[in-house]
Amino acid sequence: MTVYNFSAGPAALPMAVKQQIADELFDWQGTGCSVMEVSHRSPEFVNLAEHTEQLARELIGISDDYAVMFIQGGARTQYAMLPMNLSSPQGQAVYAVNGHWGKLALKEGGRFTQAITTAPVSETTYASIPDYEADEIPQTANYFHYTSNETLEGVQWSKPPECGAVPLCCDMTSDLLSREFDMNRHAMIYASAQKNMGIAGITFVALRKDLIGQSANLIPMMNDYQTYANSGSMYNTPPTFPWYVMNLVLQWVKGQGGLAGIQRINRQKSGLLYEYVDRSDFYQNMVSKNCRSEVNVPFWLADESLNQAFLDNSAAAGLKALKGHKAVGGMRASIYNAIPEAGIEALISFMQEFERTHG
Amino acid sequence: MTVYNFSAGPAALPMAVKQQIADELFDWQGTGCSVMEVSHRSPEFVNLAEHTEQLARELIGISDDYAVMFIQGGARTQYAMLPMNLSSPQGQAVYAVNGHWGKLALKEGGRFTQAITTAPVSETTYASIPDYEADEIPQTANYFHYTSNETLEGVQWSKPPECGAVPLCCDMTSDLLSREFDMNRHAMIYASAQKNMGIAGITFVALRKDLIGQSANLIPMMNDYQTYANSGSMYNTPPTFPWYVMNLVLQWVKGQGGLAGIQRINRQKSGLLYEYVDRSDFYQNMVSKNCRSEVNVPFWLADESLNQAFLDNSAAAGLKALKGHKAVGGMRASIYNAIPEAGIEALISFMQEFERTHG
Repeated sequence: MTVYNFSAGPAALPMAVKQQIADELFDWQGTGCSVMEVSHRSPEFVNLAEHTEQLARELIGISDDYAVMFIQGGARTQYAMLPMNLSSPQGQAVYAVNGHWGKLALKEGGRFTQAITTAPVSETTYASIPDYEADEIPQTANYFHYTSNETLEGVQWSKPPECGAVPLCCDMTSDLLSREFDMNRHAMIYASAQKNMGIAGITFVALRKDLIGQSANLIPMMNDYQTYANSGSMYNTPPTFPWYVMNLVLQWVKGQGGLAGIQRINRQKSGLLYEYVDRSDFYQNMVSKNCRSEVNVPFWLADESLNQAFLDNSAAAGLKALKGHKAVGGMRASIYNAIPEAGIEALISFMQEFERTHG
Repeated sequence: MTVYNFSAGPAALPMAVKQQIADELFDWQGTGCSVMEVSHRSPEFVNLAEHTEQLARELIGISDDYAVMFIQGGARTQYAMLPMNLSSPQGQAVYAVNGHWGKLALKEGGRFTQAITTAPVSETTYASIPDYEADEIPQTANYFHYTSNETLEGVQWSKPPECGAVPLCCDMTSDLLSREFDMNRHAMIYASAQKNMGIAGITFVALRKDLIGQSANLIPMMNDYQTYANSGSMYNTPPTFPWYVMNLVLQWVKGQGGLAGIQRINRQKSGLLYEYVDRSDFYQNMVSKNCRSEVNVPFWLADESLNQAFLDNSAAAGLKALKGHKAVGGMRASIYNAIPEAGIEALISFMQEFERTHG
C-alpha cells in the first residue's frame, strides 16, 4: 500500500531524497563513512555547506546584501533572537498576527522589545487576515514581523504586508520553497526546515547584512546573528545531517523547476482539494478565499461525530496524520512540496467514498 | 579496505547503529515512513523519547532528583545557558580550566556571571590539570564548572574535582558514556552528542531539579531549562532524527555491558596506544600519566617534517582524520566508543611500519 503522510511537520520528504540518503549512508562522497560521521571542517562538508547556501540563494533569489545562516533551535529560537538582535527593551516592533504561530512570536518577542500589533489579537481562530492601515505603522519601529502561512488555521498571505520603510521580517517556516515571493521586500526571512526544506534540527535564516551586529544587548554568542554570519554558521559543530538533507531537498526543488515549478504543482494540488471541499456539503473550509493556504488545508466534517471514523478509516487506507491541531479541531491535510499530486487524488477519492458511505 | 575514522567529532558511529538506521529508513516501526518524517507528537516518537530518557538514566545512574533534557545548539549553547539559569550578573561561579574548551566555557560564562578560576589560565596548551586548594573555593559560588575531557590536549580528569557544597557542573561532551563516573557528585552534566552519544544537533543535559526555575534573569524561552523540564523537551519541534540516533547508540552501549563494559574496552584501547607511543622514540605524548585522556590520544612525531607524509600515508591506509587540532599541532587519534579494538591495532601497525620506513 502506498502511504501518504499529511503530517504538519516533521513532514514527508521527497522519495528521491530518501533514496539518496539510503544510497550514501555507508559511503558519502568516497569518504568511506556516513555524512553523519564526517567533520564539519572537512573539505567535503565545507563544500556541501557552500553549495547549500549557493543553491538557496539561487532558488529564492537572495542577493549578496543578505547573510545566509543555518541555526539550531527552530523558529521559536528566532522569536527571541530577532528582537534581541534587531531591537531592545526600549525599542519598538510591530507584529501582524493572523494565527497560532504569530501569537506565539508576539508573546516571546514582547519580552525583548515593545511589541505592538497591527490589529487586536484574536483569542480564537483566524479565518482571514485582519485589516490594518499601513500608513499608521510607526516608521521608527525596528522591524515588522508576520507569519506568511499559519499551519493550524490554513491562512496564508497572498503577498507580503505593507509596512513602509520598516524592515520586514517573516516566519516562513511552513511555506518557504513552496511558492514564489518577493525576497527583496524583506529584511529577513526564516524557516525551520521540517516542512518544505528537510528535517527538524536546522533553521534557515536570510538577514540583511546592514542589520547584523548593531545591537547593544548582552546576547549569548549562539543567539547572535553576527556569530553565524562571521563563521559560515560553523562557530561550533553545526547539525551536519539536517544540513545535508537540506542540500538534497534544495537540489530536488531545483529539479522540479525551482519555486515557479513547485508553485505550479502546489496550486494544482491545493486547488483540487479546495474545489472538492467547496463542492461538498459533507466537508467545509471556512477560510476566506483570498488567504487560503496552499500548503495546509484544514477541513471540518459537517457531522463531527464522524471524526474518529474518518481518522481510523483514512489511516487504514494509508492516508496518515490527517487530524487537525487540537486548538482548532477537525481535519488538516498538510500538502507540502513532498506530497505528490497522486497523494491529493488518493485523499479526494477517500473523502468521496467516506461521504458516500457515511453521508 | 576497512576505514577507521579517528575524527574528533562529528565522529564514527557503531556499525550496528548505521545498519539499523539503514534498515528502518523507509519504514520506521510500521509507520510506512522514515523516523525523520514522523510527528514528534506521534505515539511512536513519544515512546522513543521516553525510552531514550529511561535508558540514559539507567546507564548513567541518574536519579529522579534530576531532570533529563534534550537541547539544540551544542555545548556552546550550554556555556551561556548555565550562568543565565543558575547565576546572574551579580552572582559568582568558579571555572576549573585545563584546556581549550574550558577556556571557551569561561569566556562565554564570564559574560553572564562573575567568573573566577581555580588557577591561572594558561595561554598555551595543557599537559596536566592545574592544582588548586579545594578549601579556597568560595562556598557562595552558584556553581563550579569543569571539562571532564579536553579533546585537543588529551587531558582528562580521573575523578571529579573537589568543590565542597558548590553545585558541580561538567561539560562531558567528549567522554559521557565512555566510562563510569559518580553522577551523584554532580549537580549538572551535559554533552553534545557527536562524540560518544550519536550525531551533531542534540545535547544531553541532566540537571538537579531544585536548581531549575530559580533565576530572575530575562531568559529566552528556548534558553530556559524550565521550558525543557516542563515539556519533556518538546516545547517545540525537537531534532527528531538526532534524538533517534541517540536512542540507538544508548541501546548499543547497553549491549556492550553499559558504562563498565565500555570502560573496560576503552582502557584496553587507549592503553595499547599509549604503551606503544611511550615505547617509541619516534612518537611522543607529553601529558602527565595521571590525566591522560582515554578517548583522545594526541601524539607528535619527533621529526615534524614527516607530518604530511604521515597524514597522507595513514589516510591512504584507511586511517582517517588523524591530524591534530591546529591549536596544538601534531596528530590525534580520537578513539571514542565506536572505534573497535581492531582500529587501534590497525593504527599501531601503521605507526610501526611508518617508523620502520621513516625512522
